[in-house]
Amino acid sequence: MTVLILTGEEDVTADLVVAQLHALGAPVVRLDPADLPGAVSLSGEYVHGRFRGHLSAGGRLVSMDGLRSVWVRRPGTPAARAGWPSDWLSEESGQALYGMLRSADVRWMNHPDAARRARYKPWQLRLAQRSGLPVPATLITTFPQAARDFAGRYPDLVVKPVSGTHPQHPPRAVPTSRVAPGTDFSAVAHGPTLLQRRVAKRADIRLTAVGDRMLAARKAVSPDAGPDEVDVRFARSDAPWKPVEVPPRVTEAVRGYLREAELAYGAFDFAEDADGIWWFLECNQSGQFGFVEAETEQPIARAVARWLACEDGAEPDTGDGGSTVPAPLSGGRRGTPAHPAPRVRPPRSPDRPPRSRPA
Amino acid sequence: MTVLILTGEEDVTADLVVAQLHALGAPVVRLDPADLPGAVSLSGEYVHGRFRGHLSAGGRLVSMDGLRSVWVRRPGTPAARAGWPSDWLSEESGQALYGMLRSADVRWMNHPDAARRARYKPWQLRLAQRSGLPVPATLITTFPQAARDFAGRYPDLVVKPVSGTHPQHPPRAVPTSRVAPGTDFSAVAHGPTLLQRRVAKRADIRLTAVGDRMLAARKAVSPDAGPDEVDVRFARSDAPWKPVEVPPRVTEAVRGYLREAELAYGAFDFAEDADGIWWFLECNQSGQFGFVEAETEQPIARAVARWLACEDGAEPDTGDGGSTVPAPLSGGRRGTPAHPAPRVRPPRSPDRPPRSRPA
Repeated sequence: MTVLILTGEEDVTADLVVAQLHALGAPVVRLDPADLPGAVSLSGEYVHGRFRGHLSAGGRLVSMDGLRSVWVRRPGTPAARAGWPSDWLSEESGQALYGMLRSADVRWMNHPDAARRARYKPWQLRLAQRSGLPVPATLITTFPQAARDFAGRYPDLVVKPVSGTHPQHPPRAVPTSRVAPGTDFSAVAHGPTLLQRRVAKRADIRLTAVGDRMLAARKAVSPDAGPDEVDVRFARSDAPWKPVEVPPRVTEAVRGYLREAELAYGAFDFAEDADGIWWFLECNQSGQFGFVEAETEQPIARAVARWLACEDGAEPDTGDGGSTVPAPLSGGRRGTPAHPAPRVRPPRSPDRPPRSRPA
Repeated sequence: MTVLILTGEEDVTADLVVAQLHALGAPVVRLDPADLPGAVSLSGEYVHGRFRGHLSAGGRLVSMDGLRSVWVRRPGTPAARAGWPSDWLSEESGQALYGMLRSADVRWMNHPDAARRARYKPWQLRLAQRSGLPVPATLITTFPQAARDFAGRYPDLVVKPVSGTHPQHPPRAVPTSRVAPGTDFSAVAHGPTLLQRRVAKRADIRLTAVGDRMLAARKAVSPDAGPDEVDVRFARSDAPWKPVEVPPRVTEAVRGYLREAELAYGAFDFAEDADGIWWFLECNQSGQFGFVEAETEQPIARAVARWLACEDGAEPDTGDGGSTVPAPLSGGRRGTPAHPAPRVRPPRSPDRPPRSRPA
């Protein structure tokens, strides 16, 4: 049974996972949809009520029946490297490839529909609330008066994009910014605006969830950081990311979030306040993990590889801050075999260093 | 409880449904996402674990809690008519609107995720097979040799697009065409190609499924039609669309298809062969129904209105060829209230004209 990875050629994160898959002895086919048609070929036949499909890439032919899992990492636009590229050929090639894969009995990290839905910030906030995660008071509005009322109730606010990344070339992250006192909100009428109570944070938390594994890291806010430094991506800080244990209530809530969202992978960002509460900021279903793994040495790439190879179910806690929860329905669209992890938390390894809990 | 219709201003099909909703006394808000921000406004607040959202359009303010259903008919691109339109503003506005609606407890016709998935032809073919619908032997391939082998086994073939409509401006339907004997298939390597055994058809069937209702229409193939006239959209024919009863096995299979696809609305195209078998060609989740209703007088707009108003559950069979099946999970993402129709088929109305069955 083969693991299929959809990504471009230059992807060091995928390289890490491929190395782990090789170590596990799991067969891998890695391809970029941009190379279909061309270096990548496919064929699927519907005859007598049955389907038989094949993919070919890098000289390897793999049956769709023989796929174990699909990792949608950073796939290129289908047919982007074809001899005569066009929107039409991209559409045809994307339909052929994803249309066949969508009916294969595989586990997805992440399923394209779940991935798409997971990008909606308003939906994320509501799901986080429903899952029991603390969400800072938030308003998304085009009504200037609603913004004024909200600023009256929550005078210390940040503003951030509703959608995330600005779609320019290359895409650009739009920083979260603090709202100055006395701001005029009349421009809110010209575009939906997301206002959120600023969390006076003492640390940023990145929780990487991989199927049943949760690996959290914490980056302390610099003691001399001003209240305007609200976005960890743009803040000056020499503090490293360090592994941190996940509070049981967060584990439970994140588990519920992933199950509802049908995600096998999610990178959660939290702001930790002075009381140790982790406030949900967002969940990025394709969030990078290389920088966390590099600083914390948490085995995230290995966790991804084990999940893709369907060897995640019985992995013992190796003392890296991970906790074991049942696998979410994840790739779990209908017809996908579920691989629930044991519900019993394995004993801690004795060489686990004691660590202070943030809550 | 209000029905929300997302569509442009000029949409006579929506006009028909709105008239039916008015007749039912169901409150309606109709808006075009292209008018957000501007003529359309929204606001959503996430405070203390709760969400309160509102939409405003045409001078009406409606609470997200007060929405009964959403009909995604022909919505414009969000913010397309804004004062300063941009890709970024469209992204922000679309995220805000659909992100909030996605977490509302409403029934969808159709849910955006289900709609998107339903467009994948290879996925459609596999689902049709699994649902028990007869599917003509089909090959989708970039391997010239696979095409040659298939043509050897099925000498009478048609070729059609994998994806449907060509994305030019305005979008253009690409006709299904017959494959000439002795065709050279080497160009298949340059783009995925869909080949299908030609069904020697005596009629085209359009089955419109609206929740639990199925309304089928039949258009006889002209006696002087040549075998090259394979696409009903482009064929010369004076034969009208006429109501036709749905064979019980087709009812059962279509029911399964819709349930798996999570669709509340689907326009199925079949080719009826000389033995009366309905061969599945495709299911268009946003297929037009105005032309069928105009020729057959089948009350499709009324069925859509009743479904949107949640008054579809108990509608008696009015002798128009409809049959009663349980409502699909349709809008039925988690959290959506289900509205199952009674499983008992109501007695036929005595004024129903006798009609020959095609099978």
